[in-house]
Amino acid sequence: MREFVFFGGKGGVGKTTVSCAYALKCARAGLDTLVVSTDPAHSTADVFDQEFGDEPRPVEGHDGLSAMEIDPDEEVSEHLMETKRALADQVSPAMVNEIDKQIELAHQTPGAYEAALFDRFIDVMRDSDHDRVVFDTAPTGGALRLLSLPEFLDDWIARLIDKRTESIDLYERAAIGGREARRRIEDDPIIERLRERKEMFEFAGHALRERATFFLVLNPDELSLRETDRALDDLDEYDLSVGGLLINRLTPEPDDGEDGHGARYLRERCANERERVATVHEEFAPPVRGTIETRVAEIKGDLLAEVAAELDIEVATEPTP
Amino acid sequence: MREFVFFGGKGGVGKTTVSCAYALKCARAGLDTLVVSTDPAHSTADVFDQEFGDEPRPVEGHDGLSAMEIDPDEEVSEHLMETKRALADQVSPAMVNEIDKQIELAHQTPGAYEAALFDRFIDVMRDSDHDRVVFDTAPTGGALRLLSLPEFLDDWIARLIDKRTESIDLYERAAIGGREARRRIEDDPIIERLRERKEMFEFAGHALRERATFFLVLNPDELSLRETDRALDDLDEYDLSVGGLLINRLTPEPDDGEDGHGARYLRERCANERERVATVHEEFAPPVRGTIETRVAEIKGDLLAEVAAELDIEVATEPTP
Repeated sequence: MREFVFFGGKGGVGKTTVSCAYALKCARAGLDTLVVSTDPAHSTADVFDQEFGDEPRPVEGHDGLSAMEIDPDEEVSEHLMETKRALADQVSPAMVNEIDKQIELAHQTPGAYEAALFDRFIDVMRDSDHDRVVFDTAPTGGALRLLSLPEFLDDWIARLIDKRTESIDLYERAAIGGREARRRIEDDPIIERLRERKEMFEFAGHALRERATFFLVLNPDELSLRETDRALDDLDEYDLSVGGLLINRLTPEPDDGEDGHGARYLRERCANERERVATVHEEFAPPVRGTIETRVAEIKGDLLAEVAAELDIEVATEPTP
Repeated sequence: MREFVFFGGKGGVGKTTVSCAYALKCARAGLDTLVVSTDPAHSTADVFDQEFGDEPRPVEGHDGLSAMEIDPDEEVSEHLMETKRALADQVSPAMVNEIDKQIELAHQTPGAYEAALFDRFIDVMRDSDHDRVVFDTAPTGGALRLLSLPEFLDDWIARLIDKRTESIDLYERAAIGGREARRRIEDDPIIERLRERKEMFEFAGHALRERATFFLVLNPDELSLRETDRALDDLDEYDLSVGGLLINRLTPEPDDGEDGHGARYLRERCANERERVATVHEEFAPPVRGTIETRVAEIKGDLLAEVAAELDIEVATEPTP
């Protein structure tokens, strides 16, 4: 298995449970493992009965396992602050107010959340010294498109260099004889920042393509199958490696002798779900790496180890290219 | 009830079913009703066994009921084309290529989908001559933020007018004696377009605040309750009127005499769900306007009329302000 493992899928399908179960499995096999959660609803805090924050912290009672929780709302605000700060250093004070407004507007667009989260994932991958990092969500269509940013930025940076070379030239001609030090295009802070962003997304493209494996968690219903189909297309479009599918929340069968309204309901439901599971096996290319039955109790403690045992996902590391 | 009725909630909670059931109820009460679906998964085509397109079409077998389906992907492409066309008319040919690239990039951001859909909703509301229009989804946080666009645009338009007045002035001084007709700021196509957009969002703000009611559909699970809480905050922030909540997909109780693995599972599950329903009644301000039990069969035909009867949502129109 590769170093970075992502469990994608729509909200509510059970990504956090599966991620924690797999991370537990890795840690028990002796790997130094970090699980990264972004889900404010069903959080690692519930699973491990312990609070986690923005930095990795050891999970009590589980050797070799650490966890961290990223709060996407906080990421958006931080991203906003950082962008403002970075630009304030680079433009005249008169423009700061105007630019701040534009940046705030940009951060209110629906995609800001995904973009900020993606930035943070890149940080985590960059800083990681763990054997395995397990993410309880995967970047989706919108964020994955950011992987094509380097090409766009290349073009943009080239044009900007032209424009700024020209303007520095004009500036110097106007200031002939002045004491102003020579401005150099190499030191231009805006171009520097664009280059940094470009390198960051180049790193992300490489890390996600060469050092990461993606799994998709789904439930046995039409909507979830359709979403999975779409997510597989996205992953395929960006050449990302899919390790398999996990089908979660299968309805338990009633006992053989049971009869009545409840038993009939469950049997019909199970029959429906079996059809969906069959469809997944037949129509989706990646292998099914686990089918997990609904538990009424919260999945934690022994139940988590039980789910971990139901995952047919390998643990051993493979050499990174 | 107001003219426009939106059923919001996360994917998979059953918005299309509830919307179609309510639309049926309105049509049967003699209102000329349109149901607008945007959900490619569980579509009105399945509910009514008939294909619908981008324009309202009568639903066979149901007097006074029409339906249309908006394909959000298509909306994004159309929006892209239209933006390109509008700008191509307004800038020099040399800039068209550059601008096309920027527009494409903007349409690849995660929020483009929501924004394009919101534009289309505004069109539908503007063109409507129905007594009641029922939408099977509601704009969420990201799209609702567009309601604050008019203020931003006001500022932006004022600045642009300044800049362009200045540039027209310079242009005319340079062209003194030429045959060029006098350029007038009133005819400026870019400012014209900004004004159109501003008016459109002003209309949207008014229509959503004064002529629309929002309902939220949820399921009796933690994640859905949390999402509903967030959605209510959003609606509240933009002063939108919430008519109530619909709790969908309640697990049916087994018969009294039933025993066994299946019955025990169902009883525990029902007990859990009852707790969630109680929480909704206690902690959410809007009234619960229906609790709908899960059916194994697809909800259509007689079953749809059955669900319609379970909705405690009024039908009669109220005068629009």
